Amino acid sequence: MQNLGEMPLLIKYLLPHEDSRNARGEIVEAATERFGYADLNQRISKMANALASLGIEAGETVAVLDWDSARYLECYFAIPGMGCTLQTVNVRLSPEQVRYTIQHAGASTAIVHPDFLPIVVDGWENANPLKRIIPIGADCDLPPCTVPFAPDLATLCNDASTGFAFRDFDERTTATRFYTSGTTGLPKAVHYSHRQIVLHTLGTLATLGTAPIQGRFHADDVYMPMTPLFHAHAWGMPYAATLLGTKQVYPGRYVPANLLRLIRDEGVTFSHCVASILQMLLDDPLSDEIDLSRMKMLIGGGPLPNGLARRALDRGIDVFTGYGMSETGPIQTVNLLTRSELEADRDDQVRLRTRAGRPALLCEVRTMNAACAPTPEGTDGEVMFRSPWLTEGYAGDEAGSARLWEGGWLRSGDIGVFGEDGALRITDRLKDVIKSGGEWISSQDLEGLISTVHGVSEVAVIGIPDERWGERPMALIVSSQGPAVVDAVRQSLIAAADEGVISRYAIPEKIVTVEKLARTSVGKLDKKALRSRYATDTT
Amino acid sequence: MQNLGEMPLLIKYLLPHEDSRNARGEIVEAATERFGYADLNQRISKMANALASLGIEAGETVAVLDWDSARYLECYFAIPGMGCTLQTVNVRLSPEQVRYTIQHAGASTAIVHPDFLPIVVDGWENANPLKRIIPIGADCDLPPCTVPFAPDLATLCNDASTGFAFRDFDERTTATRFYTSGTTGLPKAVHYSHRQIVLHTLGTLATLGTAPIQGRFHADDVYMPMTPLFHAHAWGMPYAATLLGTKQVYPGRYVPANLLRLIRDEGVTFSHCVASILQMLLDDPLSDEIDLSRMKMLIGGGPLPNGLARRALDRGIDVFTGYGMSETGPIQTVNLLTRSELEADRDDQVRLRTRAGRPALLCEVRTMNAACAPTPEGTDGEVMFRSPWLTEGYAGDEAGSARLWEGGWLRSGDIGVFGEDGALRITDRLKDVIKSGGEWISSQDLEGLISTVHGVSEVAVIGIPDERWGERPMALIVSSQGPAVVDAVRQSLIAAADEGVISRYAIPEKIVTVEKLARTSVGKLDKKALRSRYATDTT
Repeated sequence: MQNLGEMPLLIKYLLPHEDSRNARGEIVEAATERFGYADLNQRISKMANALASLGIEAGETVAVLDWDSARYLECYFAIPGMGCTLQTVNVRLSPEQVRYTIQHAGASTAIVHPDFLPIVVDGWENANPLKRIIPIGADCDLPPCTVPFAPDLATLCNDASTGFAFRDFDERTTATRFYTSGTTGLPKAVHYSHRQIVLHTLGTLATLGTAPIQGRFHADDVYMPMTPLFHAHAWGMPYAATLLGTKQVYPGRYVPANLLRLIRDEGVTFSHCVASILQMLLDDPLSDEIDLSRMKMLIGGGPLPNGLARRALDRGIDVFTGYGMSETGPIQTVNLLTRSELEADRDDQVRLRTRAGRPALLCEVRTMNAACAPTPEGTDGEVMFRSPWLTEGYAGDEAGSARLWEGGWLRSGDIGVFGEDGALRITDRLKDVIKSGGEWISSQDLEGLISTVHGVSEVAVIGIPDERWGERPMALIVSSQGPAVVDAVRQSLIAAADEGVISRYAIPEKIVTVEKLARTSVGKLDKKALRSRYATDTT
Repeated sequence: MQNLGEMPLLIKYLLPHEDSRNARGEIVEAATERFGYADLNQRISKMANALASLGIEAGETVAVLDWDSARYLECYFAIPGMGCTLQTVNVRLSPEQVRYTIQHAGASTAIVHPDFLPIVVDGWENANPLKRIIPIGADCDLPPCTVPFAPDLATLCNDASTGFAFRDFDERTTATRFYTSGTTGLPKAVHYSHRQIVLHTLGTLATLGTAPIQGRFHADDVYMPMTPLFHAHAWGMPYAATLLGTKQVYPGRYVPANLLRLIRDEGVTFSHCVASILQMLLDDPLSDEIDLSRMKMLIGGGPLPNGLARRALDRGIDVFTGYGMSETGPIQTVNLLTRSELEADRDDQVRLRTRAGRPALLCEVRTMNAACAPTPEGTDGEVMFRSPWLTEGYAGDEAGSARLWEGGWLRSGDIGVFGEDGALRITDRLKDVIKSGGEWISSQDLEGLISTVHGVSEVAVIGIPDERWGERPMALIVSSQGPAVVDAVRQSLIAAADEGVISRYAIPEKIVTVEKLARTSVGKLDKKALRSRYATDTT
């Protein structure tokens, strides 16, 4: 008999029992569908029975291409619960890249929203590798396809029986896989075991729950993701919200006005996103009519510009940052302010809330030099991690995995510095830092300063080749004011240098306005593209 | 090379790093000694080096006999961190039983407060099984002993070097062992692995942290145990407080006035204890002079009588219960009130706060009939558990372990019922329930009612043999009013039966006053002793 004293850490145990009254919330999809946790439990069982009835067995990979839906949440539990791997497909990649990831993952089955059917039906280099496609939506037109279509997901699930027997198995079984959309090379396969996901869920809840005041996530919160479910499990928060039994709202495709209406109508209090989504929300005309002062918003996936942090604070949003990578669970630091930090004035609040924050519980975060020796407080180094929920490496990429873990720590590729306050600040990407005359200039520091100048809506600072200094910084600015903004930016940087905030040599000679900035599929600045576009620019 | 993506769950990772600024609290011992977390880190390293210098190696068991001290907290980390087993010796057992547990555990070393030196120096059935004894306190008189004394613990630790290399090892390594003081038979050996303790810590923090309002434990709390550190790791809270980096206060031997002074002087906000300690606190004259309204108090280890809950609420204490056993981590349910429950009036608050509460995160708690089938809501059954931090069984007791896990769930031996509110109420010990005329009468329900009668300070209800009914309840009451209280109790129970709160057949014919009630070493009512004393009583 199995030793029950050693219950494995499996995702199924994150789901409140059907008869649990702990789970008082409901699951809401885009305001049209809503059901309680007892139903969620049944729906997950039905989905597992539905997939099993198609012949899907433990060990297979099931790819999901969908917007943020209640069904997607069910996939988070049903697919790994069966012993299958859930591939959360990044639908923002190019169609070729999407097909590459599905092929690389060896998925047998794809569950596909009609918007993405064209991608999986056609265009494969060789034969379509899928065994079956399950469309989402009963009334969608099915294009011709060499692979059989199963009945649509809702019909399949509705017709299935309840009471799937989710068995115990090894907690180190792979539960999920997704692909990081780096700016270089092919997407890389990150995967997580049941154990890692359960530990990330507990660690995140314990970290966010025990915050003294600010940024706290608790059982009465109403949760809505604004980081897609395909991206690092939406930072693990749907698992955390489900374990707590909170109300959860799934917004479908992200349309700012819809997100704002859901926040208002469903009483959303906790969300998370990249800075550009927050900016879209605040830029939407509807935003002015909606009370955002009950919102806690965790910002990650890239820096939170000072100007944007200020705008959010002005709207009463409890805005703060977290830090991590697709490879790290993702959460590694959370920027929870102390009681005394919360008493700081608005300017200091902006500065404090845009740090990366302090290590989450059970996360060891260090800044290290090239020899993997810790750099002292106040000194830049590459940020490295240890914790129980770091990815083991990239599937099928031994060289990449070895680089990721070189020296026995997971390397972020980011440059950061721990301050006296024990909080980490990310100063740059290792590959984006500007090496000028033997000194390092942080592109992100400059971006932060420039973003606060009136009239600047977006900014990127890149290094461009320079005969004398090796590299020099160049600032690219999007502004509705056009070139008039350039002088304001220059004056502001000179003032910052006068105050000692930046070095004088950090002031870019080249400050130009551009129509738009190249971004990656997840909305981050694509500095590689920008460098190659502007390296020889003589503006 | 070890796969760092799979960091084991070891107790050492619960300790904030020396250079961590997350841990802002300090460790205070009985108001005389105080140091920060950086020092705690160093002291733990020094203790490990000190123990290693005596020749203590991984795999050995080190017994600790001490009151609640800062050094004891260091033992929580240093001893398991070295790969040794920490035996937390229950010093309230009889000297013979203490020696039995040390012998049974195979401890090589004992770290001993002077109060307990006589127990380990002499009285062994055969030769003293210890290899060495480490006294606590530099100036204590050492009695003659066949076993060598090491230098005292403080001197040993102060002289030791820092920087012990705590290695990684299998997370299933036994970390701790202690003995449950059941009312029958020899003490039983319960043991926990590093993995179980880390998971209990995370689960407890996530559960208590995410409470919407009431009963929440957070990083700004000031923690003091009032459940001894030898008892089920003081419910795991010292590990939780350390991981959070809160201020921690260790009160030495429990003297009510001292505890009260520490609460006042150190600003204690979170503690936990059995009901009898809470009663001692409130009975102490000093209690009236001290503001207790900032205190959160988690009560467990037995029922919280209604009368006592009311007294605590009247003093502004956020009093609430938890439930579990030495064998279950211990925490399995926590009685966190919902927002609407908190709006109930005082009478309902008392009723709500004396439930056992709802299952903690990752804990599956069921009431089952004899065939291990779940009993429906509102129906009594034996409480059974599954969770990732249940003991595997009793060391060296296969038959006892098999009984504990009979049917594949850990059996509590308690009778309980889940209400419509999803919360568990414990109605009795399986062996204390009174079987009268084919019906079950809950001794704890009767005790709860009787405890609210004016003049009752303690009460026990036991079953005594009855020719006609098999068993009948008998109430034993401690009261300063003497026998005058009996009539008041009888009238109150008749009123409760009139209101349908209890059955008419539950009213005891025999209600008597007694000088005192027999209790076990941890302060629980010893109903076995009471039954054998009063079974043939004809008062």
